[in-house]
This record gives sequence, structure tokens and C-alpha cells, in this order.
Amino acid sequence: MTQTFRIGVVAPASPLDPSVIDRTQGLVRELYPGGGVEVVFHPQCLEVFGHFAGDDDRRAGAFLDYANDDGFDAVWFGRGGYGSCRMVDAVLAGLTSAAWGKAYLGYSDMGTLLAALYGRGFSRVAHGPMASDLNRRGGAAAVARALSFLVEGAESSLEPSVSADGPPTAAFNITILAHLMGSPLLPDLTGHVLMLEEVGEYLYRMDRDLCQITGNAALAGVAGIRLGRCSDIPDNQPDFGQSEEEVMAHWCRRSGIPYLGRADIGHDVANKVVPFGRWPARP
Amino acid sequence: MTQTFRIGVVAPASPLDPSVIDRTQGLVRELYPGGGVEVVFHPQCLEVFGHFAGDDDRRAGAFLDYANDDGFDAVWFGRGGYGSCRMVDAVLAGLTSAAWGKAYLGYSDMGTLLAALYGRGFSRVAHGPMASDLNRRGGAAAVARALSFLVEGAESSLEPSVSADGPPTAAFNITILAHLMGSPLLPDLTGHVLMLEEVGEYLYRMDRDLCQITGNAALAGVAGIRLGRCSDIPDNQPDFGQSEEEVMAHWCRRSGIPYLGRADIGHDVANKVVPFGRWPARP
Repeated sequence: MTQTFRIGVVAPASPLDPSVIDRTQGLVRELYPGGGVEVVFHPQCLEVFGHFAGDDDRRAGAFLDYANDDGFDAVWFGRGGYGSCRMVDAVLAGLTSAAWGKAYLGYSDMGTLLAALYGRGFSRVAHGPMASDLNRRGGAAAVARALSFLVEGAESSLEPSVSADGPPTAAFNITILAHLMGSPLLPDLTGHVLMLEEVGEYLYRMDRDLCQITGNAALAGVAGIRLGRCSDIPDNQPDFGQSEEEVMAHWCRRSGIPYLGRADIGHDVANKVVPFGRWPARP
Repeated sequence: MTQTFRIGVVAPASPLDPSVIDRTQGLVRELYPGGGVEVVFHPQCLEVFGHFAGDDDRRAGAFLDYANDDGFDAVWFGRGGYGSCRMVDAVLAGLTSAAWGKAYLGYSDMGTLLAALYGRGFSRVAHGPMASDLNRRGGAAAVARALSFLVEGAESSLEPSVSADGPPTAAFNITILAHLMGSPLLPDLTGHVLMLEEVGEYLYRMDRDLCQITGNAALAGVAGIRLGRCSDIPDNQPDFGQSEEEVMAHWCRRSGIPYLGRADIGHDVANKVVPFGRWPARP
């Protein structure tokens, strides 16, 4: 580790809004005026290839540029969207020992990469805010939380039910986790408290995803599920007749997985950090 | 089997438009004026419980009423929508020997039930039109095709690539098959030609589903994939840059599954019948 804590930002799915870069750098200077933190955006973050921030090879290559570089302490995802499932195999095939000790932070579509890295035994993988959260009203708080987690391992950034003495944890967007069912990328989550959040999906789709997730034998051993925020739910036609929490509790009852209440995560600026496994104390 | 060919209709997901019943009966009288075919709609088809045609127990019970009744030669699904994944376990737990020899026909959300029955060794399961297709312009042709398949086993109703001497087949809606990944309900499709269709989904979602489907080890042994029609695709923002066939061919290339071209199935009146496995010659 260098004297300066160096964070490399890549975009494995959709491209960044260019203005996010300057605003992030401004916030970093404000939060860490001594210059102890440097955030470096890979040029790939701004590339555009149809739906994606560069083609699959380019996005995988950019991830590996930073993950395999000893000069970075953390890889921070710039934005979600869609695309990490298309390049994750190339990432796994290209990781070197330099990638091992770094922290990795993101959420939403990035859940595919977080799952794959955690499944490979990476121990500093976490679900939490990304640079593009600056585009939300009040987003500076989310980005400051992400930075304080990466740089200082700040306990205040953690989802409140996370505890060093408690069970291991993991967090996912519901749609992304449903798409890991039957995949070799799904890590062993036995004994973990699983926190799930959603955005922009009809309740009938959440219901269908949760049927798939809670019905999967590989998840039968989770310690329990907490439900994060489910925002921007389109109106179901006809009315679904159940809230998102009733839907979640229904599938927990049916599957025998304990429902543990709400989690303080979601597609919003209050999104707290959830480590995969147990977050090791920083040296 | 009675002298009259008796078809029982149930709705394991969403409720039927009541007018479909009379119109179906009218069409049956027209197509089979001798009275050799009787179509019986279970009263459950018209029940409404929020999103569903009755609650989960009611829908499973109605299915079992007809599947386990020796007086019916076939169980025909009235409509898709959403809901069969919620009641399929109760169906599997309640099947008796009377259910074994019947034909079962439907598509879309019904794929979950077709998969589960085929996985249990039911040999007369098929993907094809439902009564509610009468609500499409020209839908009488679709319903007549379904009836001629059920009653006469008419070859003219079959998807053109289906052949008694060819490989076994199966067909699914892409979203529904993606939700069977990691599920014990997924049947062994080794050696099968898999035909896939979609309706109303963004291309990025089709891409994500096909990543999951073609990446699943259980499907590595399929003989190949044919792509049915993908209709009512909402505009991707930004443009996805690939057609649905390019997306399908991409995932086939990546997974090593042969892409075999188009299939004559879809959410439309031209939707042909695809047997699960090989359709036995009628006695």
C-alpha cells in the first residue's frame, strides 16, 4: 500500500455521466484535503458501445487493469446498468495475485461481479454506493459513505444490523440474484444474512424472482433474509394485493427461511454498506 | 376414454375474460358439429383473487380436479399471465394415476407447469395456443390448431421442424425458462431442440436471461436452440445495437450450443404446437 489510498474506478456495465468524474474529484478534495485519497477513473468509464461502457473485452480489460495493479488499494464501481454478466468470465480468467487483497465496492448490476469475486474467496467485497450516486439528490452523502468505508473501514458506513460478531452477510438486487440461480458464479451463502433490494420492478416480477430465489436448494441454508427498500415499483394491473414486505415474508414462510425484517439498503442515497462475509478489521 | 373427447380448461395463473368461454364453445360446435368434442371450463377460470384466478390453493385444486378426473382426455390451459410457479408444488403433490395419460397444452406462464409435468415423466405435454388466444385478431385459427392437436394429434398443428423421427423438442417463453434455472422443476432437456419465444421484454433483459439460460450446466447438452418470435419489444435506451436473433446467436456461440434458426412459435395467432419430448402417435 502506498502512502496515498488509491481507488480505481471502472464501469463493467453502463457508461458514466462524464460530469460525475469532476464532481467526485471535488468531493474527494473536500473530504480528504490532505490529499491522502486519490480516486482514478479509468478512461473506459466514459466509453460508449451501444448499451455498454465499451464492448465486453474492453470492460473486462479495464477491470483487470486496475484489479491487477498493485498501485490501487480498492476497485470501486462507477455505475450499474446492465452488462457485468457478459464480462465476468473474462474477469475471473484474468485475475492475478495483485487483485486478491483489494476492496471491491458497488451494487445493482455489480452484484454479479461481487458474487463471483466472493465465490473465488476474495474477502473484501462489499455492496454499497457507487460514484454515479452523485446524480441523486443528496448523493454526496452516499459517495462520502462509500469512501469512508473503503478508506477507513468506518463502522458508521455499515448497514446497522451488520456486526463483526454477528453472522456473515451478503446483499443483492433481487433481479440480479435471481439471474445467478443455477449459475456457477453463485457463492456459498450458507449461514449468511441475505439483504435484498429492488428498483423499478412490478410486484408480480418481484414475487416470481423471490419464488425462484427462495426455492433454490443452494440458498436453503441462509441464516435469514432482510428486505431493503423497493423503490419506483410500477403500478400492478390489477393491484397485486400484497406489499413488497408481505411478498418477501410469504416466500420466507414457504421456504422456511427466517424473515428478519428490513435492511437499510436500496437504490437511494441512504444505501448503507453490506460486506460479503465478515469485513476484516483494517490493519 | 369416453366416446366424446373431453377437454377440461383451468387457469393456473391469471383469470379468463368471461366472453372467451362462450366464444370457445361456439367455435367447438362449428369445428366439431357432431358433438364429438366437449370443452368444459372449470368455474375457477373466472375467479379473481388480486392478480390471480383464485388463490394458490384454489388454482392448484382446480387443476387437480380435472387432471385427476378419468372423464377428461386433456387439460387445456385457459390463459397465462402470472401465477403457476406459486401453485406447481401443490399440483405435483396431488397428482394421481388418472393424470398420467392426459394431454396438457398451453404456453407463456404455463411453461412452469409443462416443465414440471414433463420432468415427472408425463409424455403428452405440449407448448401451444390457449383459449384466451381467441382475444387476438384471427385467434380462432390458433384455437382451432390447439383443438386439432389435442383431439386428432394433427401433424399440421406442429411447429414445422418437429418430426417424429427428429430429436425430442421443448419450448418455453424465455423469461419463464430463466426462472426455472436452479429449480428442481427444470426437466432434463439433454438432446432436445429448445424453442424459445418472448413478448414485451427489453432486449437487454432478453440478453440477461439468455446469459443465464445458456450458461446453465444443465442445458449444455441440448441439441440446439431455435428462436421463436419476440414481439412487442420496448425501445431500448440506448439502442441495444443487436436484433433478438443476433442476441440469441451470440449466446449460442459463447456457450457452444448450436443455433438452429427460427421457430414458428410466439405470443401470436401463428403460434404452432411444440411437444415436450416426442409426441406419441395416437392409438
